[in-house]
Amino acid sequence: MEKMVEKIADMNTDFAKWYTDVVVKSKLVAYSGVRGCCYYHPYGTALWENIKAELDRRFKATGHENVMMPMLIPEPMFMREKQHIEGFAPEVAYVTHFGEEKLPERLIVRPTSEVLFCDYFKNEVQSYRDLPKLYNQWANIVRCEKTTRPFLRTLEFFWQEGHTLHETEKEARAETLKMFEVYRDFAENYLALPVICGRKTEREKFAGGVETYTIEAMMHDGQALQSGTSHYLGQNFTKAFDIKFLGRDGKQHHPHQTSWGVSTRIIGGIVMVHGDNNGLVLPPYVAPIQVAIIPVAAHKPGVLEAAEAAANALRKSKQSTSDSGGIRVHLDTTDNSPGWKFAEYEMKGVPLRIEIGPKDIENGCCVVVRRDTREKVIVKLANIEKEIPKLLKSVHENLYKKALARRESMTYTAKSLEEIISIAKTKPGFIKGPHSEEIETKLKQHGITSRCILSTGQVIWGRAY
Amino acid sequence: MEKMVEKIADMNTDFAKWYTDVVVKSKLVAYSGVRGCCYYHPYGTALWENIKAELDRRFKATGHENVMMPMLIPEPMFMREKQHIEGFAPEVAYVTHFGEEKLPERLIVRPTSEVLFCDYFKNEVQSYRDLPKLYNQWANIVRCEKTTRPFLRTLEFFWQEGHTLHETEKEARAETLKMFEVYRDFAENYLALPVICGRKTEREKFAGGVETYTIEAMMHDGQALQSGTSHYLGQNFTKAFDIKFLGRDGKQHHPHQTSWGVSTRIIGGIVMVHGDNNGLVLPPYVAPIQVAIIPVAAHKPGVLEAAEAAANALRKSKQSTSDSGGIRVHLDTTDNSPGWKFAEYEMKGVPLRIEIGPKDIENGCCVVVRRDTREKVIVKLANIEKEIPKLLKSVHENLYKKALARRESMTYTAKSLEEIISIAKTKPGFIKGPHSEEIETKLKQHGITSRCILSTGQVIWGRAY
Repeated sequence: MEKMVEKIADMNTDFAKWYTDVVVKSKLVAYSGVRGCCYYHPYGTALWENIKAELDRRFKATGHENVMMPMLIPEPMFMREKQHIEGFAPEVAYVTHFGEEKLPERLIVRPTSEVLFCDYFKNEVQSYRDLPKLYNQWANIVRCEKTTRPFLRTLEFFWQEGHTLHETEKEARAETLKMFEVYRDFAENYLALPVICGRKTEREKFAGGVETYTIEAMMHDGQALQSGTSHYLGQNFTKAFDIKFLGRDGKQHHPHQTSWGVSTRIIGGIVMVHGDNNGLVLPPYVAPIQVAIIPVAAHKPGVLEAAEAAANALRKSKQSTSDSGGIRVHLDTTDNSPGWKFAEYEMKGVPLRIEIGPKDIENGCCVVVRRDTREKVIVKLANIEKEIPKLLKSVHENLYKKALARRESMTYTAKSLEEIISIAKTKPGFIKGPHSEEIETKLKQHGITSRCILSTGQVIWGRAY
Repeated sequence: MEKMVEKIADMNTDFAKWYTDVVVKSKLVAYSGVRGCCYYHPYGTALWENIKAELDRRFKATGHENVMMPMLIPEPMFMREKQHIEGFAPEVAYVTHFGEEKLPERLIVRPTSEVLFCDYFKNEVQSYRDLPKLYNQWANIVRCEKTTRPFLRTLEFFWQEGHTLHETEKEARAETLKMFEVYRDFAENYLALPVICGRKTEREKFAGGVETYTIEAMMHDGQALQSGTSHYLGQNFTKAFDIKFLGRDGKQHHPHQTSWGVSTRIIGGIVMVHGDNNGLVLPPYVAPIQVAIIPVAAHKPGVLEAAEAAANALRKSKQSTSDSGGIRVHLDTTDNSPGWKFAEYEMKGVPLRIEIGPKDIENGCCVVVRRDTREKVIVKLANIEKEIPKLLKSVHENLYKKALARRESMTYTAKSLEEIISIAKTKPGFIKGPHSEEIETKLKQHGITSRCILSTGQVIWGRAY
C-alpha cells in the first residue's frame, strides 16, 4: 500500500511553485484554514526548534537572558514613539472586543515589542549599576500582509527579539555589531548560508531606530532574503518612554538601546538556497534527521540487527559541532520499499542516507549516500562513528561553497542608475553599484531595493522576498 | 550601596498580599502596563523554561511530537462545536481590524486550540494507518478574566496543549489516562506537589469534551488549584469537523480524540504550596538556581578560589534526577554583604546555599544551609559533588512530605450537604463528601466547587483559585 513520492515543479521553470511544492511535500508545513498562516508539521517544528536551541545557546554565551512579555499592547502605549507607529500602524491587528463587550481602548497584537520592553525597563533601571540589561524573548508576532507565502511572509510568524539597554552610545553600538556578528556566524557556520553583511539605507532601516545592520542571503533564483537584522535604536525610545538612570556623574541620563531579530523566514532561506529538483536539502547541523538508515532486504538474517547497531552507535557518537547530543538518526523499518524510502528522504532533505543490506553485512560495510552530491561512499561499519561526522561536515562545507559560488557568479557591478536598470532587466542576481536617495527612489519603481550598504560605501541592489 | 531585602506580608495574616509580594519581590514577574498581564523577569522565565524542558522530555518519551498552530481562529471555524463555543465565547478576544481596515470575518485569539487541530487533522488522516496522531504544542493563550492575579489567572498565559487522535475509544481513553499519570508523576516527583487525582463532574468538565481528569493541589491557605487536566473528547469534535478515516473494516469512521494541558498556573501552585514567610521556596529539581555559593570575607586569600572550585565541581556533577546537565550553581561575588545575600537567596527560594569563609577553608569544609528547614550542615569540600545531590533530594522529599501532611491535616469528611457547609464555614481545606447535582448547585452558592470525583465515588469539595 505504498504511496508514491509526489512530483514537484521544476525549479528552473517555476521557482515559486517549486518552493510551495517543496515546503508542503517535504512535510515542513501544511496550508491552514487561517488566512496567511501555516500549520507547522512535526518536521517543520523540529527544524525551528533546532534553530531556536542553537541561537539561544549563542545568546546565553554572550550574556543574554530570556524574558517573556505580553502579546497585547494597549494602543496608547504603542503610540509613544512617532516613527515607530508610522512604520507599523498600517499592518497591525487590533483587538476591539472581549466576548461581546467593546474595549475602552484597543489592544494591538504585537508586531514587535520595543514598546513593551520600554514599559518593562522603566521600572527596572534606576542607576548605572542596573545597566546593561541584556534580554531576549522567543515570541509569536502578527503583521498583516496582503500576499503571504509559507515562512517568507505570513500573517503570524515566530521569532526571537533581543532588547538591550546600555549606559553609553559606544556600548550600545558595540552590542548592535556583536549580535550582527552572532547572526553572520550562525547563518554561515550552522546553516551553511553565505550572507552579505551591511547597513540598511535610511529608507530601509527599522522604524524608530538610528541604524539597522542586516545579513542578506541570495536565493537560488537570484533574489535576496533579509535573514536577520540588528538595530541601534539610540535614545529614541528611552526618551519617548522617559527611561532614566543616575549616571556616574550624578546626573540623569537616557540609556542607549538595541534590538535584533531572526525569524522563521530564515527557514524559507534554507529551502531556497540549498534545495534542488529532488526537494529539500537541509544543512546537516540543523537537520531534524541527519542520517536516515534504510535496511535493504530487511527480512534477511542480520540486516535489521546491523541497522539497529549502526543507529545506536551513531546516536551515541559526538558531533563535530557545538551541538551537544549525538547524531540524529532515523531508522526506517516500515514496509515501504527501499526505492520509495530513498525518494522520501531525498524529498525531506536528509543530509546522509545509509543503506544496509545482506551483501554489505558480509563485507562489514554500508553504503552512505550524500544528499548534496548524491555521491555514494562505502564505509566500514566499524568506522561509522568516525566517518559519519566527517561526512556531515563535508556536506555542510560543500553546501556553503556551492551557495557562495552561485552568489558570486550572479553578482554584477554597475557604475550608474542606467547600468543597474539594464543589468537587472536581463540578469537575476545582485548588483553592486552607487547609491543616492534619487537612485533608490527610481529603482524602487522597477521593484529593485537596496539590500545593504557595504563597508566600501557601495550598495547591493536586488529584488527581494 | 546595598539595598535591603524588602519586607513581605505575613502569610498567616494576609495570604493574598503575601502571594503578590513574593512573586514580585523574588523577581519572578513584574506588574505590566498591559491589563491582566505580567512581565516575566529572567528568573520567572527560567522557571517556566525548566518546567517546559521536563514536560517536553516526558511527552517525547511517551511518543508525542511538537507542532505549531496559528494563534488566530476565524470565527466560523470556532463555531463548529456547539458546547465548545458556548463555554468559551464569553471570554474570547476578537480581532476585528487590520490597520484601519475592517475584517469581513472576525478572528479569535485562541483560548484553546481544539478547532485548529481539527482543521489540521482533517487533511492528515485518511486511513487507520495514519493513526494515532500524538501531538503537542507550546503556546500562548488569551482568555478574558475580570479579576487577574500573576500566574493564577491572567489575560494571557502560557501552556502546552496535547492533542491526539485514535482509531478506537479504548485507545483514546488509555491515552487520556496515560497523560493524566504523566502529570501526576511530574507534579509529585519533579515539583514536590502532592496532588489529588480524579474526574471532574459534568458541570466542571471541559466544554465540548466527554470526560475530564484533573490533578488538584492544596495551597497553603487550604484552597485548591487545578494544576493540570486531561480530556477524553470522544468524537464530538471529529464529527463536527467531519474528520474520517478508512477503518480496518473497510468503512469510514470518526477518530476518537484527547486533549490535555498544563499552564503557567502551576507556578502559582509552587509558590503557594512551598513558600513561607521568608519568601519563595523552590523545589530543587525545577529551581533555576539550585545552589547559591556565597564567599564570606571574600578578600581573604583563598576564599574566592575555593568558592570557584566548589562551583565548578558542582556544575560538572551529575544530578540524581532525570535532568541532564550538572547542578545549577550561582556564585555571588558582588559587593553586597553576606547577610544581604543570605536574605536575597532565601527570598528567591534557592534550595541550598553554601557559605565558604577563611575558617571553612582551613578545615576543608563549607557550611550548607537548607532553604526548607534552615538547617546548617557542615560538608567536606572534597565531598560536595556527592553530598549536594543527596541534600537536594532530601529537600525535595521533605517539601513533598510537608505539603502532604498539611493537606491531610486540612482534609475533612462529611456525610451531608449541611455537614459540608458547616465544616466549610469554620475550616479552610478540602472536604470529602457525597455528590449530587443538587448538592453541587447549592454549594456553588457558597463559593464551594467540586474539585474531583475520587475512585470511591466521593467528591472532594473546596474553594479554589
